[in-house]
Amino acid sequence: MSTTLTPDILDALALQAVEVPSWAYGNSGTRFKVFGTPGTPRDPFEKIADAAQVQRFTGLAPRVALHIPWDRVEDYAALRDHAESLGVVIGTINSNTFQDDDFKFGALTHEDPAIRQKAINHHLECIDVMDATGSRDLKIWLAEGSNYPGQNDMRARQDRLQDSLQQIYDRLSDEQRLVLEYKFFEPAFYHTDVPDWGTAFAQVSSLGERAQVCLDTGHHAPGTNIEFIVMQLLRLGKLGAFDFNSRFYADDDLIVGAADPFQLFRILVEVVRGGGLNHPDVTFMLDQCHNIEDKIPGQIRSVLNVQEMTARALLLDREALAAAQSANDVLGANEIFMDAFQHDVRPALAGWRESRGLAGNPMAAYAASGYQERIAAERVGGAQAGWGA
Amino acid sequence: MSTTLTPDILDALALQAVEVPSWAYGNSGTRFKVFGTPGTPRDPFEKIADAAQVQRFTGLAPRVALHIPWDRVEDYAALRDHAESLGVVIGTINSNTFQDDDFKFGALTHEDPAIRQKAINHHLECIDVMDATGSRDLKIWLAEGSNYPGQNDMRARQDRLQDSLQQIYDRLSDEQRLVLEYKFFEPAFYHTDVPDWGTAFAQVSSLGERAQVCLDTGHHAPGTNIEFIVMQLLRLGKLGAFDFNSRFYADDDLIVGAADPFQLFRILVEVVRGGGLNHPDVTFMLDQCHNIEDKIPGQIRSVLNVQEMTARALLLDREALAAAQSANDVLGANEIFMDAFQHDVRPALAGWRESRGLAGNPMAAYAASGYQERIAAERVGGAQAGWGA
Amino acid sequence: MSTTLTPDILDALALQAVEVPSWAYGNSGTRFKVFGTPGTPRDPFEKIADAAQVQRFTGLAPRVALHIPWDRVEDYAALRDHAESLGVVIGTINSNTFQDDDFKFGALTHEDPAIRQKAINHHLECIDVMDATGSRDLKIWLAEGSNYPGQNDMRARQDRLQDSLQQIYDRLSDEQRLVLEYKFFEPAFYHTDVPDWGTAFAQVSSLGERAQVCLDTGHHAPGTNIEFIVMQLLRLGKLGAFDFNSRFYADDDLIVGAADPFQLFRILVEVVRGGGLNHPDVTFMLDQCHNIEDKIPGQIRSVLNVQEMTARALLLDREALAAAQSANDVLGANEIFMDAFQHDVRPALAGWRESRGLAGNPMAAYAASGYQERIAAERVGGAQAGWGA
Amino acid sequence: MSTTLTPDILDALALQAVEVPSWAYGNSGTRFKVFGTPGTPRDPFEKIADAAQVQRFTGLAPRVALHIPWDRVEDYAALRDHAESLGVVIGTINSNTFQDDDFKFGALTHEDPAIRQKAINHHLECIDVMDATGSRDLKIWLAEGSNYPGQNDMRARQDRLQDSLQQIYDRLSDEQRLVLEYKFFEPAFYHTDVPDWGTAFAQVSSLGERAQVCLDTGHHAPGTNIEFIVMQLLRLGKLGAFDFNSRFYADDDLIVGAADPFQLFRILVEVVRGGGLNHPDVTFMLDQCHNIEDKIPGQIRSVLNVQEMTARALLLDREALAAAQSANDVLGANEIFMDAFQHDVRPALAGWRESRGLAGNPMAAYAASGYQERIAAERVGGAQAGWGA
Repeated sequence: MSTTLTPDILDALALQAVEVPSWAYGNSGTRFKVFGTPGTPRDPFEKIADAAQVQRFTGLAPRVALHIPWDRVEDYAALRDHAESLGVVIGTINSNTFQDDDFKFGALTHEDPAIRQKAINHHLECIDVMDATGSRDLKIWLAEGSNYPGQNDMRARQDRLQDSLQQIYDRLSDEQRLVLEYKFFEPAFYHTDVPDWGTAFAQVSSLGERAQVCLDTGHHAPGTNIEFIVMQLLRLGKLGAFDFNSRFYADDDLIVGAADPFQLFRILVEVVRGGGLNHPDVTFMLDQCHNIEDKIPGQIRSVLNVQEMTARALLLDREALAAAQSANDVLGANEIFMDAFQHDVRPALAGWRESRGLAGNPMAAYAASGYQERIAAERVGGAQAGWGA
Repeated sequence: MSTTLTPDILDALALQAVEVPSWAYGNSGTRFKVFGTPGTPRDPFEKIADAAQVQRFTGLAPRVALHIPWDRVEDYAALRDHAESLGVVIGTINSNTFQDDDFKFGALTHEDPAIRQKAINHHLECIDVMDATGSRDLKIWLAEGSNYPGQNDMRARQDRLQDSLQQIYDRLSDEQRLVLEYKFFEPAFYHTDVPDWGTAFAQVSSLGERAQVCLDTGHHAPGTNIEFIVMQLLRLGKLGAFDFNSRFYADDDLIVGAADPFQLFRILVEVVRGGGLNHPDVTFMLDQCHNIEDKIPGQIRSVLNVQEMTARALLLDREALAAAQSANDVLGANEIFMDAFQHDVRPALAGWRESRGLAGNPMAAYAASGYQERIAAERVGGAQAGWGA
Repeated sequence: MSTTLTPDILDALALQAVEVPSWAYGNSGTRFKVFGTPGTPRDPFEKIADAAQVQRFTGLAPRVALHIPWDRVEDYAALRDHAESLGVVIGTINSNTFQDDDFKFGALTHEDPAIRQKAINHHLECIDVMDATGSRDLKIWLAEGSNYPGQNDMRARQDRLQDSLQQIYDRLSDEQRLVLEYKFFEPAFYHTDVPDWGTAFAQVSSLGERAQVCLDTGHHAPGTNIEFIVMQLLRLGKLGAFDFNSRFYADDDLIVGAADPFQLFRILVEVVRGGGLNHPDVTFMLDQCHNIEDKIPGQIRSVLNVQEMTARALLLDREALAAAQSANDVLGANEIFMDAFQHDVRPALAGWRESRGLAGNPMAAYAASGYQERIAAERVGGAQAGWGA
Repeated sequence: MSTTLTPDILDALALQAVEVPSWAYGNSGTRFKVFGTPGTPRDPFEKIADAAQVQRFTGLAPRVALHIPWDRVEDYAALRDHAESLGVVIGTINSNTFQDDDFKFGALTHEDPAIRQKAINHHLECIDVMDATGSRDLKIWLAEGSNYPGQNDMRARQDRLQDSLQQIYDRLSDEQRLVLEYKFFEPAFYHTDVPDWGTAFAQVSSLGERAQVCLDTGHHAPGTNIEFIVMQLLRLGKLGAFDFNSRFYADDDLIVGAADPFQLFRILVEVVRGGGLNHPDVTFMLDQCHNIEDKIPGQIRSVLNVQEMTARALLLDREALAAAQSANDVLGANEIFMDAFQHDVRPALAGWRESRGLAGNPMAAYAASGYQERIAAERVGGAQAGWGA
C-alpha cells in the first residue's frame, strides 16, 4: 500500500513555509561546553548563505530570521540583497535582552528607568532593522526573571513590562507586528516574567490587534498539552508564531519532531483544524540548537519533519472523525486519528519533490553537493559565530 | 527570642476566614480503595456539625461549602438554620458534572444539546440552592475532557463551554458570582477542557465582572510557580477563590502546607502584596482529602497551617525588602524574605488565641473534647458519606 | 512503497505473546467515578471468556493474568479448564495488599507483626493458586507507603519488606518466580516503599535468581528515559516482566502506544537489542484501565499496538545503525532509527494475519462478530466486576 | 519561647563540615550568558583564598574541592601549603570529561579505544593530584550521553563504562575512594549514561567497597522523593557524598535550601536516621552556581542553611515520633516531625557561634570585613576564572 497525497494536500504543502533562524548555523551548546565545527559561519552573510542551502534543497525555507545584536551589520540593504540573491528573504527580527551587563537583573521590566529605556531603545533599533529589511515581525522573548524568592517584586515588574511593550508596540508601522514569546524557565530559575501562554495572552491583549503570542514548543512544563494551547490561541485570534523544536526534559532545543513525533502531529492537526496552516498570521519558525550534529543538514531534517507531519495531519479524515466523535466512539475516533499518523508519507513526498525539480532526498542531495566540504575548507580563520556574535 | 506579632498583624489575622468543604468530613480515597472511619457523617447535617468543630476550636472557619448533589436536602432553610445554630454559615455551592452517567463524555461541553442542557440545568439548580442558603459563590470545577487524542474536538467543546457558562452566568443575581476552577488533569487523561489559568481567565473574562477564577493549589503542572499566577490573577482582577491543599506528585489533596510549607508562604506573601487578604472578593477555601488521617483534626491542622503562614507573610519587612530589591541585592532581599518565613509564630498565635477565649492548642483541645469518641459511638448504622452521597 | 516483513521478522512475530489481565474486562475508573458498561463480566469465568476473544481475533494473547482476591474461585482447576477450553491459559498471579482494612498503613512493611504475617500469608495463598493454575509468576505490586512526612520510618519498612519478600520467595517452587513491581507514587502520596527500579533491583538481588523486576511503563517520574531502564535491567539480568500501558500525566493506564508511540518503539528496540523479545524470562503483559472505551476492543487495540511496534523495531537496520554510530554520524544514525519507526507495517501485518487464518483487521472482525451485543444482552443482573470483586 | 539546643546537638554541630568547591568562586552562568563580577579569582590560589573566607566566618567549611583541569597548577604541594596557611585543606578531586573536543561523543564510554584511554588517563592524572594533595575522594560526574534516539548504543556504552571505572578504581590506594555521581539530564538531552541512583549503585557495587555513590540534590526527575534515596543508599552502605544545591526546575544549582527548605530538612532527618551525619564515609559538599549573586556570601549563606537544617533535624523528638508512628497516628507523627522543622534555630546558633569566638552573624561579619572591596580593588587584569579555567 503506497500512501498517495491528494491534489488538495499537495497544494497545501506547496504553500508551506518554515522560517529558519540565522543563529542555528552558528555554534551553540550548553553551559558546560560549546563545541565548534569546521565551516561554521563567521558573519551574518555566511549564515544566510547556509540558510539558503536549506531552501535550495527543500523549497520549504524561504525566509531567514535575524537576531539583533548577533546579526548587526552596517548595511541592512546589502544583507537583504545578499539574501535575495540566494533565493531567500529576511524574516522575523528577534531582540535580545539577556546578554548586556546592564540587563543582569531585568530589561523591559527593570526598576531603573534608564536601563528600562535602554531596553526599549534596543527594540526601537530592531524596528529600524525591520524597516530596512522589510520584516513584518518583531519577536520578543522575555528572558527576564529572578533566581531567588524575594529577589524581585513580580507584580511591579509585570506592570513595567506592560508599559515597555506599549511603547514598543506604538512604534510599529501598520504592517508590522509584535510577537511575544513565553517560556517556562531558563535563564531565570525562580520566576520568569512571561512564563506561560496566559501571561503572554494577557499582555498582548492589552496592546492591540497586531500584538500576538509566539508558542515555542519547548517552553512548557512537563506534561503540558501543547496542542490545546495551539487550539486556544487560534480560537482567541492570538497565535502569531511558532518556534519549533523538541525536547525530552527542559528547553532542549532538539530537532523538531525528534523527541515526540506524535506530539508534532497533534499540534499540526490542531493548526489545520484552527485555520492556522499557511495563514499569513501564523509564522512557522524553527528555533533549535545543533550542539553536536551538523547544522545545515540538521535544519534540512527539521523542515522535512514539519512537512511530513503536516502531510499526515492533512491526511486525517475529518469527516469520519467527526462522525466517530459525535457517536462517542472513543476507539473508533482514536483509530481514525492514528491512521493518519501511521501513514508513511516519505515516498509520496519524495515523488512530489522530484516532480517540482527538487531532490527526492534532500539530505542525500545536500551531502552529495559538496557544500559542507567547501565551507569547511574556505572558512578558515576569523571567529565562528555563536550566541555572542 | 520570641516572635511577637504586632497589633496590625493581629488585626489582620482576626479577620481571616477559611471556608471548609462539607465533603472533607466524609470518606475519600484513591481509585484503589476508600477506607472508612468510625464516626464518619451520614448526611449533610452531620457534616456541618463536624465542620462546626473546626470553627469552635480555631475561630478561623466560619463557613461551610456544599457540594450538589452530595449535599442535596429537602429543606435548605433547615440546613441553613442548623448551620447557624452551630455557629457557622453555608458558603460556596459546588456543582458536579462528573458522576452522572450522561456526563461520561462531557457535560457543559457535550455535543448533544440535551445532555448539555441537563448540565446547565444542574447549575441552575445550584443557583436555586444558593438563593435558599444565601451563598454568594457558585464554583464550577470543569472535570470534563477526553482520554485519547482524536476522541473529541477540543475547539468545538471550548465554544460550547463558553455558551453554557454564559447561560449560567446570566441566571446569577447581582450579588452572586461564578467561580471557574481549572485543573491540569484528572479525571481526564489526555485533554481537560479548562486545564490552566489562561483558559479559565479567557473564559471568565468574556462572561462579565462577577465571573472569576478559582486557583486550586494542587492543579498545576510540576514545577509551576503558583505564586506568580496568584500575582497575575490579582493584578488582572480575576482571582475569585483559592482551593487550598498540597501535593508532592499530582492532585494529591494533602493537608495544605504539608508538602511544601515554603510554597504556601510564598503564595500568601503574594496574596498580601496584591491586596487579596481578607478581601471579600477572594474566598479562601480548603479542598482536601483525608484518606488515612482523622478528618476533623485534619481540617483543624489545615486552617492552622494557613493562619501560621499568613502570620509569617505579614511579618515580612516590606520596606526593607523593597530597598534590597531596588539595590539588586539578591542575597539581602532573599534573606529578608526568608527571615519572615523562619519565624516560629506558633507561641505568639497560641497566646493570642487564648486571649480571645480559644484554646491555645486547638489540636489538643479537640482531642480532649471527646467529640471524636462521641460521634464514633453515636453514628452507628446508615451509609457513611463519601463522594457519592 | 509497501513495507514487507522478512521471514525472520515474521518468525519472531509468530512467537510473540502478550498476557492480558483479567481485571481489564471489569469496570475501572478514577476516584471520581467508575462508569459501568453493558456486558461487563460478573465473575472470573466471564472475564476469561472475554479475554479469550482477544486471543481469538489476534492470536497474540494466549495467557490471562489473575488478581487475587478479585479472581478468587472455589475451584481453580475448573477455572483452568475453562480457560483452556477457550484457547487460553492462566498466567501471572497478582497479589493485592491495598484493599484490606488491615493494610491501611502497610502490609509487607507493616510494623505490627500480625498484620505483616497476614500479608505474607496472602502471598502464600497466591502461590497455592499458582500451584493449582500452573502459573509461573507471582507479581507483587507494592502499593504501600505513607502520605505525610514523618508518618512512617521508611528505613525500618524497607528492612521489613526485605524480610517479608524473603519469606515469600522461599516458599516458591524451583519453577516459580517472584516479580517485584515498582511505582513512582499512588495510592501513597508522600513515600512509596518501592518507588523506583533501583529499589526493586536492590530488593530482588538479595532474594535470589528467580526474583526479578517488573517494569510498568506508567510508573515513572515525568521525563524518565524508560528504554534506558529496560536496557539496564536486561543487562543486569533482572527484567522479569513488563506491564504495558501509556500515560500523558501520572499512572493514567491508557492503551499502550496511545500516548507516545515513539516511546513504545524505543522500548521495543531496546528489548530486541537486549535479547528480551520472546525470551521466556521476560513476560509481556498489559495493565490498563478502559475507563471510558469498550474493554475487549480496547485490549485488542493494545496487543496490536505492541505487535506493530515490535515489527517496526525488528525492521531496524542494526548493521547500518552500528556503522553510523561508530562514525558518530548523529543525523545518519537517527535517520536509520527513525526510518524503522516511520514504516507503516499495518498492511503487511494484515496480510500475514490472513495467511494464518486470522482476520486481517481484528478490530473490525470483533465488531462484526456480535460478541459485544451478545454479552450485553446476556449479562443482565448480578454485580459487574470491578476492582473490588 | 526561645529554641535551645542541647549539648548533644551542639556537639554534633561542632563536628559538621561542609566541603566547598573551588569553582563556586569563579564565574558561572547559563548557556545564554555568564556575567562577570569584580573581584572574581583568576587562579586556583585566589579561589582557595576566597573559600577560606567561608571557613573564617562560619567554621563550617574546612575543605575545598578542586576540579581538574580547571585547577591544574604546576606545584600541588604549593597549593596545599597555601590552603593550609589559610586554615583549610584540599578535599575531593573532581574530574572533567565534558570539555575536551575529543569527548564530544563520550569519554569513559567512547567506542574509540584511544579516546576512552585518554579519558581513563585523565582520571589517573586526577589520582596523581590526589596523591599530591592528600585528597581521599575522586568524584566522577558522568556528563556523557546522547542527544538523539539511535545516536548511540546505550548498552555497549554501559559495558565500556564498567570497564573504564574498573581501571580507574584499580589505581586507587587503599585510603582513596571513587565516588560516582548520577544526573537526570544535561548536557545530554536524550540519554545520560548514569542517569539515576540505580545505575550508579549497580556500577559501583561491581567495583568494590571503596566505590560509592554521590547524590547531587539537583539531579533528579521532578517530584522525586530524594530523602528516600538517601535512606536507601545509607541502608545499602553506598552513600559516599552529597552535592548540595537547590532547584525549582532542572539542575538550577541555586543555594542549598533556597528553593525548598523543608526538603533539605527531610534529607537531613534521613541522614541523621541513617547514621550519615559526621560519618567520615559521607562527604557533605556544595555544588552550586552563583550566577547573579555574590559568590563568597552565597557560599556562607549555603553552609549556614545546611547547619540550620541540621540543627532542626537534630531537634526531632525521635522517641515521640517512633511512638506516634507505631500507633499509626498520622497527624500526631506529622506534627512531631513538623515541630522540629518549625523551630527558629538562628538565635541559638548565633549564640553558640559567639561562644566559640565566631561572628554571631557571619553574613554581616563578612560584609563588614572589607574583603569583598579589597579583592574587587586588587584583582584587576587577568582572566576571571570560570568553567573553562
